[in-house]
Amino acid sequence: MFVPSQLSLSLDNDSHHPLHVQIYFGIRDAILSGRIAPQTKLPSTRALAEMWSVSRSTVVLAFENLTAEGYLQSQMGSGTFTCELQPDRFLRVDGKLPTKKDLPPKDRRPIELSKRGQQMLGQYQMRRQLVDQPHPFRPGVSALETFPIAIWRRLTSRRWRSMSSSSLVQNEPFGFRPLREEIARHLRVSRDVHCEADQVVVVSSTQHALALIAQVLIDPGDPVWIEDPGYLRAQFSLSAAGATLIPVPIDAEGFNLEAARRANPNARLAYVTPSHQYPLGAVMSLSRRLEMLEWANRENGCIIEDDYISEYRYAGRPSTALQGLDELGRVLYLGTFSKVFSPALRLGYLVLPPSLLEAFQAERSLVDRGPSYFDQAVLSDFLKEGYFDQHIRKMRTLYSDRRQTLQNAIKANLEGFMEIGANDAGMHVLGWLPPGISDVSVTTLLAEHGIMAPPLSHYCLRPHERGALLLGFTGYAEERLVRTVELMSDILRQEYPSRFGQAGE
Amino acid sequence: MFVPSQLSLSLDNDSHHPLHVQIYFGIRDAILSGRIAPQTKLPSTRALAEMWSVSRSTVVLAFENLTAEGYLQSQMGSGTFTCELQPDRFLRVDGKLPTKKDLPPKDRRPIELSKRGQQMLGQYQMRRQLVDQPHPFRPGVSALETFPIAIWRRLTSRRWRSMSSSSLVQNEPFGFRPLREEIARHLRVSRDVHCEADQVVVVSSTQHALALIAQVLIDPGDPVWIEDPGYLRAQFSLSAAGATLIPVPIDAEGFNLEAARRANPNARLAYVTPSHQYPLGAVMSLSRRLEMLEWANRENGCIIEDDYISEYRYAGRPSTALQGLDELGRVLYLGTFSKVFSPALRLGYLVLPPSLLEAFQAERSLVDRGPSYFDQAVLSDFLKEGYFDQHIRKMRTLYSDRRQTLQNAIKANLEGFMEIGANDAGMHVLGWLPPGISDVSVTTLLAEHGIMAPPLSHYCLRPHERGALLLGFTGYAEERLVRTVELMSDILRQEYPSRFGQAGE
Repeated sequence: MFVPSQLSLSLDNDSHHPLHVQIYFGIRDAILSGRIAPQTKLPSTRALAEMWSVSRSTVVLAFENLTAEGYLQSQMGSGTFTCELQPDRFLRVDGKLPTKKDLPPKDRRPIELSKRGQQMLGQYQMRRQLVDQPHPFRPGVSALETFPIAIWRRLTSRRWRSMSSSSLVQNEPFGFRPLREEIARHLRVSRDVHCEADQVVVVSSTQHALALIAQVLIDPGDPVWIEDPGYLRAQFSLSAAGATLIPVPIDAEGFNLEAARRANPNARLAYVTPSHQYPLGAVMSLSRRLEMLEWANRENGCIIEDDYISEYRYAGRPSTALQGLDELGRVLYLGTFSKVFSPALRLGYLVLPPSLLEAFQAERSLVDRGPSYFDQAVLSDFLKEGYFDQHIRKMRTLYSDRRQTLQNAIKANLEGFMEIGANDAGMHVLGWLPPGISDVSVTTLLAEHGIMAPPLSHYCLRPHERGALLLGFTGYAEERLVRTVELMSDILRQEYPSRFGQAGE
Repeated sequence: MFVPSQLSLSLDNDSHHPLHVQIYFGIRDAILSGRIAPQTKLPSTRALAEMWSVSRSTVVLAFENLTAEGYLQSQMGSGTFTCELQPDRFLRVDGKLPTKKDLPPKDRRPIELSKRGQQMLGQYQMRRQLVDQPHPFRPGVSALETFPIAIWRRLTSRRWRSMSSSSLVQNEPFGFRPLREEIARHLRVSRDVHCEADQVVVVSSTQHALALIAQVLIDPGDPVWIEDPGYLRAQFSLSAAGATLIPVPIDAEGFNLEAARRANPNARLAYVTPSHQYPLGAVMSLSRRLEMLEWANRENGCIIEDDYISEYRYAGRPSTALQGLDELGRVLYLGTFSKVFSPALRLGYLVLPPSLLEAFQAERSLVDRGPSYFDQAVLSDFLKEGYFDQHIRKMRTLYSDRRQTLQNAIKANLEGFMEIGANDAGMHVLGWLPPGISDVSVTTLLAEHGIMAPPLSHYCLRPHERGALLLGFTGYAEERLVRTVELMSDILRQEYPSRFGQAGE
């Protein structure tokens, strides 16, 4: 029979350990030392709480831990009993109760970040202002007001009406099969990509695709050629995945392969944006494309083709995809739906060469399962029923108008100061600054007035000779673009009056 | 005036290059060499197709590439013209037309995988059979038939009815704020986790959370303590992210900290499953928990607490989270909704110590944006309106029954051969085999008869002394479990007749 005095605990309100922890150790010690025999019925938590002058919930908490660990057992209707201890199980617990230890040190040293963690933090602190604000001219922002909410809602309800528990089974590591079929069809028709649904992997974003690729194809420290200037998130993803980035300059034909070979002949992976180099806008020439493929074939290399913005060419048909010229399976082709709809929809795709299917199946099955099934199902209907093509056409007109308005406003207000590149694609206009003026200072100056215009320098791994601003136009109504250009012009005329000489009064 | 003879091309049907590429180079060469002057009107694609005896679409394709690259310009209603070339832009194109080069080699060497890619492929090939098949006793499979489709459908429609374009803006890097508030509330109430919504990061899965953590806290090659045996996907994720895994044995109190220190005293990150060690089921004792925290405080370490299965304890209340004891912010706490609902819903969470918030904001903003907004919105309503708690209670009863049935069937059919551990939580039962019998051989034998029962060895980084099978019960109806145990018993009695002596006839 259990006698409460066997559990006379000296509880200490000032102890480092909370009361329930002290009670836990007190009872456990009594059990382990044999002071309380197995199968002994304990007093109620209420009685113990009174005896120890603590709240009942404190005792309950201690009991719960002891029960979870097998010291106590609660028997419905008859109370709580000590358990028969299995000696082999509990033998090694004895004699090292941490109550006998010194208190752990209480100093709060910061948790150390990894080198890559520190690098990301630094990049973020430098760019936060530019990353977080949805003001003009932040680039890459979709015209969210055009998101086809009514259609999407209807397709969503329809999908859910026909949803059964068997449709929740996800055993396709590359994603929802009907969506992959629609993506393959779309890419064959509109981008001349050679692919079947089997080769299509549904991903949540370009960064997601790059992380997957990096894990399968490179080891930490391996060199990867990357466009400079280039897409920041691609740089971050590849370097976070362990790649050593080798910056490669861009010329009029796009990625400069000769310079790449000089910079590091050992790279076996190249990241390129041939349709519309980000952010300069160069279209990779056909001859350069063929050279790239020849390099890949000769040197056993792979090319990541990020066709991020193929949908937004405003004049003529976009050049066909590099992937479509690849006869030996050396190109991994990426695209995203975030730019077309909204980043709220986290869906994109990766088209693999057939020889890599099994390795990526392994990766997807073991360490990654891909994005939400529900969104994939709705998007597949959206593509299949032609809404996607409709939406693209509508957006293309809207963006083309916004781009024209922005260009006209810049010409009208900033002639002689800012020069506009001749791109006819993409989601931003590149505004070149007069030689000698730092784009970073201009960006900082404009940010003080609430205008967001990232400097080209932020996209460069090595210094770029002439400064420019990235002026996104897709997410902002025309009158807002005009107003913001006028404000920008006022600010710049005040700061750099001498540079407006030519076009001035 | 343009004379067609200036474009007399010698097209070669047997060339390595397709006809449209040969035409592209022919015209480009004529323009670059000055044989065709700028502003020259070209014949129609139809006329050229006839002249060269190729299909019109071949000429169109060549024209499109030339237009995209700025050599040709199409003027609405009046035809296609050569462009004024900007010398600086095209200067460097001359003289290196790849038509004059040797053909690239056509041998098809396999693309080389990275070491980690090869490792994943090997793991996958070894386990594919076990990963892909949804047969009993595959562990970790939810009872999909219980997914609350009707409620989910209703919440989805309601969300979409009130959806506006402004709700598509995603500027919270950690995820949809109302969902994060619900998760924080749920964890405070049911798991004694100390957290506010600010600390909650919505992720798509545990693997996703581990990849995020690894990037911020470790560099490639850094040692990380990991439970052995342990959760396979955690091993894969951490090692794919560059960690050097240090296997740490499990004893009756869980993760053996002393052995961990002996194995590698330099590790600063530990991955543990204290509530119910996966797959052995040990509950980490309170004293071990306190030792772990003391280690973290003293040595500037971090603990990843994966509370993957806290919801599925069938007797008593689950032990409280290790995170709840952490006063100095050393624990990163993980959980998932995939186990409760279905992997089709890709949602889970990571609770950060306050000191790491900024570093993870940097990572999420720069290289990762998190899962679908739409699912997050619906899940937040599901939690807020109490459906989640209801669902958990229902599932707990269902799983508890299935578990009891499985255990009874094993006792009735395999007494003396298979011994069952005493866990009262989780999604599988551990069936220990007689000493000397290899669990891998038993798994292979059962697989031949369509029964899927992964061997404990597959979860071990170093050899384990006694073999066992993981027998998942959550995804299968009771009669199916009984039938499968009976079949398993027949197979094993035939293969190992002498081992059934005791309980035999």
